[in-house]
Amino acid sequence: MFSYATHLSCSKCGGTSEINRIMQQCSCGAPLLVQYDLAKLRNRLKPEDLRNRVNSMWRYHELLPVQDHAHIVSAGEGMTPLLPLPRLADDMGIFRLLMKDEGISPGGTFKVRGATVGVSRAKELGVKELSMPTNGNAGAAWALYAAKAGIQCHIVMPLDAPLTAKVECVIAGAHLALVNGLISDAGNTIAQSIKEHGWYDASTLKEPYRIEGKKTMGFEIVEQLEWQLPDVILYPTGGGVGLIGIYKALQELRELGWIGDRLPRLVAVQAEGCAPIVKAWSEQKQTSTFWSGASTVAFGINVPKALGDFLVLEAIHQTAGCALAVEDDTILQEQKRIARLEGAYVCPEGAAAFAAARRLRDSGWISVDETVVVLNTGAGIKYPDSVQLNVPILQPGQPLPSSHLTDHKD
Amino acid sequence: MFSYATHLSCSKCGGTSEINRIMQQCSCGAPLLVQYDLAKLRNRLKPEDLRNRVNSMWRYHELLPVQDHAHIVSAGEGMTPLLPLPRLADDMGIFRLLMKDEGISPGGTFKVRGATVGVSRAKELGVKELSMPTNGNAGAAWALYAAKAGIQCHIVMPLDAPLTAKVECVIAGAHLALVNGLISDAGNTIAQSIKEHGWYDASTLKEPYRIEGKKTMGFEIVEQLEWQLPDVILYPTGGGVGLIGIYKALQELRELGWIGDRLPRLVAVQAEGCAPIVKAWSEQKQTSTFWSGASTVAFGINVPKALGDFLVLEAIHQTAGCALAVEDDTILQEQKRIARLEGAYVCPEGAAAFAAARRLRDSGWISVDETVVVLNTGAGIKYPDSVQLNVPILQPGQPLPSSHLTDHKD
Repeated sequence: MFSYATHLSCSKCGGTSEINRIMQQCSCGAPLLVQYDLAKLRNRLKPEDLRNRVNSMWRYHELLPVQDHAHIVSAGEGMTPLLPLPRLADDMGIFRLLMKDEGISPGGTFKVRGATVGVSRAKELGVKELSMPTNGNAGAAWALYAAKAGIQCHIVMPLDAPLTAKVECVIAGAHLALVNGLISDAGNTIAQSIKEHGWYDASTLKEPYRIEGKKTMGFEIVEQLEWQLPDVILYPTGGGVGLIGIYKALQELRELGWIGDRLPRLVAVQAEGCAPIVKAWSEQKQTSTFWSGASTVAFGINVPKALGDFLVLEAIHQTAGCALAVEDDTILQEQKRIARLEGAYVCPEGAAAFAAARRLRDSGWISVDETVVVLNTGAGIKYPDSVQLNVPILQPGQPLPSSHLTDHKD
Repeated sequence: MFSYATHLSCSKCGGTSEINRIMQQCSCGAPLLVQYDLAKLRNRLKPEDLRNRVNSMWRYHELLPVQDHAHIVSAGEGMTPLLPLPRLADDMGIFRLLMKDEGISPGGTFKVRGATVGVSRAKELGVKELSMPTNGNAGAAWALYAAKAGIQCHIVMPLDAPLTAKVECVIAGAHLALVNGLISDAGNTIAQSIKEHGWYDASTLKEPYRIEGKKTMGFEIVEQLEWQLPDVILYPTGGGVGLIGIYKALQELRELGWIGDRLPRLVAVQAEGCAPIVKAWSEQKQTSTFWSGASTVAFGINVPKALGDFLVLEAIHQTAGCALAVEDDTILQEQKRIARLEGAYVCPEGAAAFAAARRLRDSGWISVDETVVVLNTGAGIKYPDSVQLNVPILQPGQPLPSSHLTDHKD
């Protein structure tokens, strides 16, 4: 069997749905999650069986929902490196600091994990036309994968979304519109059109498969650590699907008996300018409320209200994790420090997660001897505008100015 | 032994140099190439020994020049996917078309292959300060790797180089200057400063190690095809180091007895607006002459005169390959077609190589039953400005315009 997926179950009311037809949310409004026959798989698959498989996230196909290999729409996504950052670890005072570098992905973003599974499954189910609101990167990834699958694609994103994401949608031939507002405004526009035209709704957690792609980050972290668990995993949290996915992956691995009972502490990192989940966490609530006036340099996590907020809060609660927010200034400082110490140009969202690791180490929440994994969700080059250029310009034949010769590292 | 490198030899006069000190070009002015004890290695390493190695280009460490593992400066580069493109193959009428997608690299460019080996080797030899002219991506990659190695870095690039490359240099803390001219003008400025300050010259082929990193593309293509050879490899050619490197890799594999005698035909692809190697090829010359008024949308291959031109011409001659140039319009059309058919947003340089494959198929130079590998040297997101945006803008609450609903896939 290529996939061990059996059915869908509601993340809130517990109701079940069959898997082999197009489903969006549960009738109660909550996200549906894919369930697998893990008891059967436990007897048929061992960790060492993975060793010589394809070097992409599709190596975990038994734990993904696509039924037929022929329906996979892939561009070589997944199995991103888990890189030791010894100089930054030293700087933070953490024993072992690892970056799961999702910047090394098609299009420079971890969003392709959701797109490869989501689009493959949409194709398998016969979807011809899909739509979604996005902060940019997810829409761009889905537009490209939909093009490859021959599926029409309607995307709405904020006007000030990254140029790269707009360009990717356009070159893929997607129908793109920009809204002079937030992702929540884009969501309202898309919802209206879906009602009118009956398109497949590929919005975050309104179809059950994107999260299955994201969860492979959890599988990979554990496999790359040779089936050992880190102590802490930090994740920059907008819609939160990656964190929910990693938590789901860890639960599945536990049920397979491939890892022990004690899970890593999961940390949801947000920006000060948009921190609904952090606020809910600090107030010990189970859901968040809409964050007014959301704004941050870490554009990908500028999500004022996430449909899966309660799942994020549950995941950090169940793993003794936490949620915290970081200021934009701190994010940009950390981004620069990572480039100077480790030669990695991470996206602002990734930099936020690193800054949170530093803060949690300073406060003692992370201790000196722990193994810490930080998700860098994308490449810095996806939105270079957050970096200031102040560079001398020469005419041909003109020598380098003396300012070029002194150490002006700032 | 970690590396089987033994000495350096001149690519023109054949003179040899010792490997364990800092060397630039041969005293005759031509590039120096690293030589290995392949006879010894042949008895000690088999293709199947590679199978469980690290999934990066450092899996080939015996055939790389770094002596001590501890000196490696790596960000998880190499082992990029070799992706089948069935819809584009069908469109071109080629039996089997594969893309070596170097866009899925740190920073979205194949230049990191040269940087990881070049900087590691510079670090091993005790270099404290290096410098180079660049069209953008190579300088950006070297700036980031140098930062990680603790090496000071001086970069000069054309004023109209891609924003991403400038930003990468700046965030890495490199000393960057822009010149209102071409890479050749940047080269003149750097040469002047090197004379004054004695910096290590990391210019293309003026140090012997960058090419060793690039050659791993050749190893990977062959290993990913399970030690079978493709019929044709197309490479977008500016300085040409990648093509020279792939040819060197193939020769080394042949000497190791891992592949047969007949090599793939290597094709050097240039842009119509800067085609010195194509001109030399068509005139059956052994070197190129400086191309005046060079200009193309494929910025990375806008190189009016390459130091290694004679090596590129030799490689295509020895493999019964060819050289051809493509117009900017054709490049941009092909870029769009690849995105629409295969969901891949390739860089203009990569698109040029695909357009060349199409042209060679149309002319019959490539036949219908051949296996063709095209190098996409970087991610399209590195310079998104070549794509036109013409997208509706909505106010919050406003519905999608009817133009969004019709198929406007121009």
